[in-house]
Amino acid sequence: MTGKVEVLEKKIKEAIEEVLIDEQPRTLFTPARYILSLGGKRLRPLLTLLAADLFGEESERVIAPAIGVEIFHNFSLLHDDLMDRADMRRGHPTVHKKWNANTAILSGDAMMIEAYKYIARVPSPFLSRVLNLFSATAMQICRGQQYDMDFEQRTDVTEAEYLEMIRLKTAVLIGCALKIGAVIAKASDDDAESLYQYGINIGLAFQLKDDLLDVYGNPDTFGKKIGGDILCNKKTYLLIRALKNSSPSQRRELDRWLKSEEFVAEEKINAVKKIYDELNLKVIAGNLIEKYYLASLDCLSSVHVPDERKQELIVLSENLMYRQK
Amino acid sequence: MTGKVEVLEKKIKEAIEEVLIDEQPRTLFTPARYILSLGGKRLRPLLTLLAADLFGEESERVIAPAIGVEIFHNFSLLHDDLMDRADMRRGHPTVHKKWNANTAILSGDAMMIEAYKYIARVPSPFLSRVLNLFSATAMQICRGQQYDMDFEQRTDVTEAEYLEMIRLKTAVLIGCALKIGAVIAKASDDDAESLYQYGINIGLAFQLKDDLLDVYGNPDTFGKKIGGDILCNKKTYLLIRALKNSSPSQRRELDRWLKSEEFVAEEKINAVKKIYDELNLKVIAGNLIEKYYLASLDCLSSVHVPDERKQELIVLSENLMYRQK
Repeated sequence: MTGKVEVLEKKIKEAIEEVLIDEQPRTLFTPARYILSLGGKRLRPLLTLLAADLFGEESERVIAPAIGVEIFHNFSLLHDDLMDRADMRRGHPTVHKKWNANTAILSGDAMMIEAYKYIARVPSPFLSRVLNLFSATAMQICRGQQYDMDFEQRTDVTEAEYLEMIRLKTAVLIGCALKIGAVIAKASDDDAESLYQYGINIGLAFQLKDDLLDVYGNPDTFGKKIGGDILCNKKTYLLIRALKNSSPSQRRELDRWLKSEEFVAEEKINAVKKIYDELNLKVIAGNLIEKYYLASLDCLSSVHVPDERKQELIVLSENLMYRQK
Repeated sequence: MTGKVEVLEKKIKEAIEEVLIDEQPRTLFTPARYILSLGGKRLRPLLTLLAADLFGEESERVIAPAIGVEIFHNFSLLHDDLMDRADMRRGHPTVHKKWNANTAILSGDAMMIEAYKYIARVPSPFLSRVLNLFSATAMQICRGQQYDMDFEQRTDVTEAEYLEMIRLKTAVLIGCALKIGAVIAKASDDDAESLYQYGINIGLAFQLKDDLLDVYGNPDTFGKKIGGDILCNKKTYLLIRALKNSSPSQRRELDRWLKSEEFVAEEKINAVKKIYDELNLKVIAGNLIEKYYLASLDCLSSVHVPDERKQELIVLSENLMYRQK
C-alpha cells in the first residue's frame, strides 16, 4: 500500500463514521450505522477517489458520491442478507438477526435514501449524469439479486446467465464507483468508459475469486467457513460448471447432494469438492479469473494518463486478484 | 370535477401504465406494476400538476416528477404492508401475500430506484432543489413509519407525538408533491412554501379523516371493513385520545380489549366504539380535522395567484374533507 491509498482510506473511514450520526429515531438509524461499522474493504469509495486522482482531481469533490456508493453497497448487503436468510456478515450477526426483519427492511430503505442524499452532493454540472449512472446501476443490482434468487429454483442455469448475474449484482457498482470519480474529474468520455470497463472486469474476477475461495480458500486466512456455498447449494460458477461438465454418475451424485436435506456438513463439502477436483474446476475457474484480470489491465492501460499515475489501481487489482479472503 | 382535473388525471393514468412496462426480469417488475395498477386516488401526482398549473406551467414539464412521487408512495405502501403484515390493499391481496416477502422487499427497492429515475428527469435548473426536497421527504416518511412501528409497543403515545408521526408518514409527501410542481413552475419561495404548508395541513386532515372513517364511516361506501384499526389495536388519533381522556373504569375496559387475544370481532369493535362515543371523540376528531382544513385554506389563500386559478385545489380539498372512503 502506498501512502496515497492510506490517506484516502483514512478520509473514507472518517466520512463513514459521520453517516447518519445524529439522526432520530435511533431505532431506525442504529442498524444502518451498525452495518456500516462492520467495515469491509471500502473498495468502492476508494476506487472513486483513485479514479478522480488519476485525472488530478482532489478527493474533496468526490468523497460525497464515493460514500453514497458505499452506503448503497451496504444497503444492498443488508436487504440481500435478509432475503438470503444469512445469519452472519463480516463475522457479526446480520441486522435482521440482531434486530428483526422489519428493522432490516426499513433501515435498509433509509440507507438507500441516504445514499441518494450523498449522490445529490455531486457538483451541479455533473449531477444529472452521475445521478443517472447511479440509478441505472442501482436498478441493475436489483435485477442481479432477482436473477440470483430466480436461479435458486433452477438447475439449468448457463455459464452465460451466471456471468450476467454477477455482472449485474457485483461488477456494475465497481464500474460505477470508478466512472463517478472519472466524470467529476472531467475525464474524457472514452477514459470514463475505459475505467468503467476496467471495473466490470475487476468485478467479475472478484466475484469468481469469491466463488473459488469458498471451496479452495485457506481455512486459516479465509475468515469464513470453507464450503458455505456448497452447504446451501448456492449456484456458484463452480456448481454451474460442475452441473454442465459432469459425467452421468457425477451428475447423479451432485443431484443427490443438492436434494439431500439431512447430511453431515463435512461429508457433503468433501463429496462435492471431490467432483469439482475431478472436473478440474479450480484450474478452469482460475483461468477465467485470469482472463478477466488481464482484460481489466487492458482497459486500464487504454486510459490516457501516464502509467505512473495508475500504480495504485494496478496494485489494488493485484491485491484483489491474489487475496486469500 | 372540472374538465381540467379530468384531463390531468388521464395523463397521470397513461403515464402510470408506462412505468416499468418492458423491463426484465418480470419476476422483479410484475409486482411493482401490480401495486401501481391497483389505483388509488392518484392524489399526489394530481397535486403536482395542479400546483404547476397555478403558475401557468404545462403538465409536460412536471409529469415525470409527479409520477416519481406516486411511485415512491406506492413503494412505501408495499414495504409498509409487508412490515404491518397487511393482507389486503385496495381490495386486492398485498404483494407479499400474492407473491412472498422477498418479492415485496426487492420489488419495493426497485420501485424506490424507479421513483428516483423519474425525479431525475426534472429540468436541470431545478434538479438539485427538487432532488433534495424529495430525498428529505423520503427520509421523513421512513422516520414516520419507524415511529408508527415504535408506537405499537407503547400505550403512552401523546397526541403531539401522534400528530408528528402522521405529519412524517403522510403529510410531508403531499406537501412535497405540491412544492415540486411550484418549484418547476418558478413560483416564488414564499408561494412554494405556502403550497407546501397547504399540503401539510391537508395531509393531516386527510389522515385524521382516515382514522375517523375506520370507526364512523358508512359501511356501504367505506370500501373496507369498519373497525379494522380497532381490531388490530392501531394507535389512531381516536385510541390515543381515548387512552388519555378515559375514566379509570373506561381505561380498564380499554386495556382489557387491547390485551385480549381471543375475542369476537363485533364485540370488541362495539365496546371500543362505545367508549369513543362516551368520550365524544367523533366530535373532537371532527373539530381537529376542521381546524387543519381551515388552516390549509388559509395557506392556499396566501399564494399569490388569482383565486379563480385555485378552484381545482379548493374543490379537491373539499372532496377529501367530505369523502366517505
